[in-house]
Amino acid sequence: MRDFLSARIHGIDTSEIRKVFDLAAKIKNPLNLSIGQPDFPVPQVVKEAIIKALQDNKTAYTPTAGLVSLREAIGEFLEPKIGYLIKPDNVIVSTGVASILFLLFQTVIGKGDAVLMVDPYFMIYQALIKYHEGKEYTIPENFGINEVDFLREKLKRDSVKLKLIIFASPSNPTGKILSREQLNLLKSLAEENDAIIASDEIYSAFDYEKRHVSMALLAPESTLTLNGFSKSHAMTGLRVGYLASPERFAPIVQKMVTLQQYTMVCAPHVVQWGAITALKTPIEEELKFMRKRRDLVYGILSKATNLPHPDGAFYVYPDIPIDSAEFVPRAIEKRLLLVPGYIFSQNKKSIRISYAVKEEILEEGAQIFVQLVNELS
Amino acid sequence: MRDFLSARIHGIDTSEIRKVFDLAAKIKNPLNLSIGQPDFPVPQVVKEAIIKALQDNKTAYTPTAGLVSLREAIGEFLEPKIGYLIKPDNVIVSTGVASILFLLFQTVIGKGDAVLMVDPYFMIYQALIKYHEGKEYTIPENFGINEVDFLREKLKRDSVKLKLIIFASPSNPTGKILSREQLNLLKSLAEENDAIIASDEIYSAFDYEKRHVSMALLAPESTLTLNGFSKSHAMTGLRVGYLASPERFAPIVQKMVTLQQYTMVCAPHVVQWGAITALKTPIEEELKFMRKRRDLVYGILSKATNLPHPDGAFYVYPDIPIDSAEFVPRAIEKRLLLVPGYIFSQNKKSIRISYAVKEEILEEGAQIFVQLVNELS
Repeated sequence: MRDFLSARIHGIDTSEIRKVFDLAAKIKNPLNLSIGQPDFPVPQVVKEAIIKALQDNKTAYTPTAGLVSLREAIGEFLEPKIGYLIKPDNVIVSTGVASILFLLFQTVIGKGDAVLMVDPYFMIYQALIKYHEGKEYTIPENFGINEVDFLREKLKRDSVKLKLIIFASPSNPTGKILSREQLNLLKSLAEENDAIIASDEIYSAFDYEKRHVSMALLAPESTLTLNGFSKSHAMTGLRVGYLASPERFAPIVQKMVTLQQYTMVCAPHVVQWGAITALKTPIEEELKFMRKRRDLVYGILSKATNLPHPDGAFYVYPDIPIDSAEFVPRAIEKRLLLVPGYIFSQNKKSIRISYAVKEEILEEGAQIFVQLVNELS
Repeated sequence: MRDFLSARIHGIDTSEIRKVFDLAAKIKNPLNLSIGQPDFPVPQVVKEAIIKALQDNKTAYTPTAGLVSLREAIGEFLEPKIGYLIKPDNVIVSTGVASILFLLFQTVIGKGDAVLMVDPYFMIYQALIKYHEGKEYTIPENFGINEVDFLREKLKRDSVKLKLIIFASPSNPTGKILSREQLNLLKSLAEENDAIIASDEIYSAFDYEKRHVSMALLAPESTLTLNGFSKSHAMTGLRVGYLASPERFAPIVQKMVTLQQYTMVCAPHVVQWGAITALKTPIEEELKFMRKRRDLVYGILSKATNLPHPDGAFYVYPDIPIDSAEFVPRAIEKRLLLVPGYIFSQNKKSIRISYAVKEEILEEGAQIFVQLVNELS
């Protein structure tokens, strides 16, 4: 039979997280700490806004870039965080941050273009670099000036200028929030390389000690800010995310919008109205619960293994004594579902634990994890 | 400044239909016959299903390929039309048929791959061929064996085998429904070339004389069936479409699902529940209205100009005496908004008129159109 597949599509594989989901479906009463979405419901006022939009027949296509009123509200939401007002023309709304990332990579990354990630990184960044035949560079999450200088040397040796710097702070998978000093180092790198910074702030609502600084506040001219409603308002399945750009990168936004005409067309209309309400609806009670869980899991784990302090998001990322690809099946034997660290990092001896689950499950799962680590140490 | 854009993204331009929309926004009281979406509301039962899903917190990620129950319902919906039952694993649900088309092209079309369109074609097909560096072939909509033989000669001269045959029946922009004989000719072409057929049936609900035959009924082994809810249930802004595949093309579906993990992730969850209800909710009253409008506009236009008989969808596609790019501004001077034919065809002297509008507007618009044609003839 003819090979019907394109050469490009061979460059993409099933997400390893999905493989864990598939395994999860086969286990009875799993202790599922692999979940990448909040366990609280969409806030009632957001639901009501979506229902009202539906009843008012707001079901036709929106402008390709998203409702103007949503893009205005995004500008106003970001202004206090980034220090300037982004106008609606420089905002694109799409079907989640994943769609935004894909449109962005299609628009800016060609063969051989160099992309820097902070390691551990969200695995979709790596998949997109590979899919677009870019060249991958990493810097460890705890980087300081030495690691930046080391990277500079490497880029010099390779005769490469970075085109894109991409990271999530708070981080998926570690929960780490990059410090102001670190962000300033990334800013220098962006300026030296004339690179775009894509700051993925999808977890910024989960910032337990108010440490999060938006990259665009420090590097307004170089930073695209990516965010959405999937995590903050538990709207993962409702599919709305956005990118907000400085005037300098307006041609990038325009091309992303053009490509969206031929792909997602627009984000779901009624949900865009829900998103306007979500921007005015901070999560507070939900955050208290999450923080309590973070303290619980960090308390149990930090006694048994080394792990970075989880400032935000809803993950911890402890070290483990063996390769994560081997650890995961061992955990599954004990009904415990985790995401292997190797998909987020060059370092294979870590594991992602989500605490977006009920406390009983979290506590039992954490205890089993500690037991397993002790057995294997 | 550095050129931040990728080479690939230069291959895509703003949809010409969007340009007409932008013009439309500037005219007072336009007679807008450029609209590509129904003017009736989403059926109440579908709205209720979406609202129920939202209230039941069905807002998390669905499986990447879509809810199993939706994919089962799609199989059952298609069975009487295509003569066999497609299992859920061979169905992918995405954020509209546009997303499905993009995933399909990414998955199967590489540089130089030959794609056949029926001319006039939906302009997104052409844009996607160009974006994926495919090679475009066309066959005129009224094709018979002679045109097919002519194409065969051409393919032979070019030493090319078709990889994909793509068409919409009922057609956007002409409303034409391909006959059984024509579909059988396309089947022969697919078999000779070992090509995939993508049968875009998004307008199949608008089939006024029950003429529509699903391609998959005649060529079950070669045909991917594409459909959705945007047109039939006025859900353009809600973003759910699907592709259903024979077992033979299962690897294509799997790769499309894999790519969806990194792009749209899933179609909006609550709307997927609405789609299940939509599959059980045929439109009847709406169809009567549309048919009446079709007869109205065809009656007025056919006296003044040559146009193919509009069997389905909600468009007519008359000939005009001058190039459509010149005709559109002349029409706009008279407040009349139309879509130029050149974006759908090699033949530039046609125009698309949508009758998904109130009868008063349709009638006034059609009269102005006739007047303009007479002036220019």
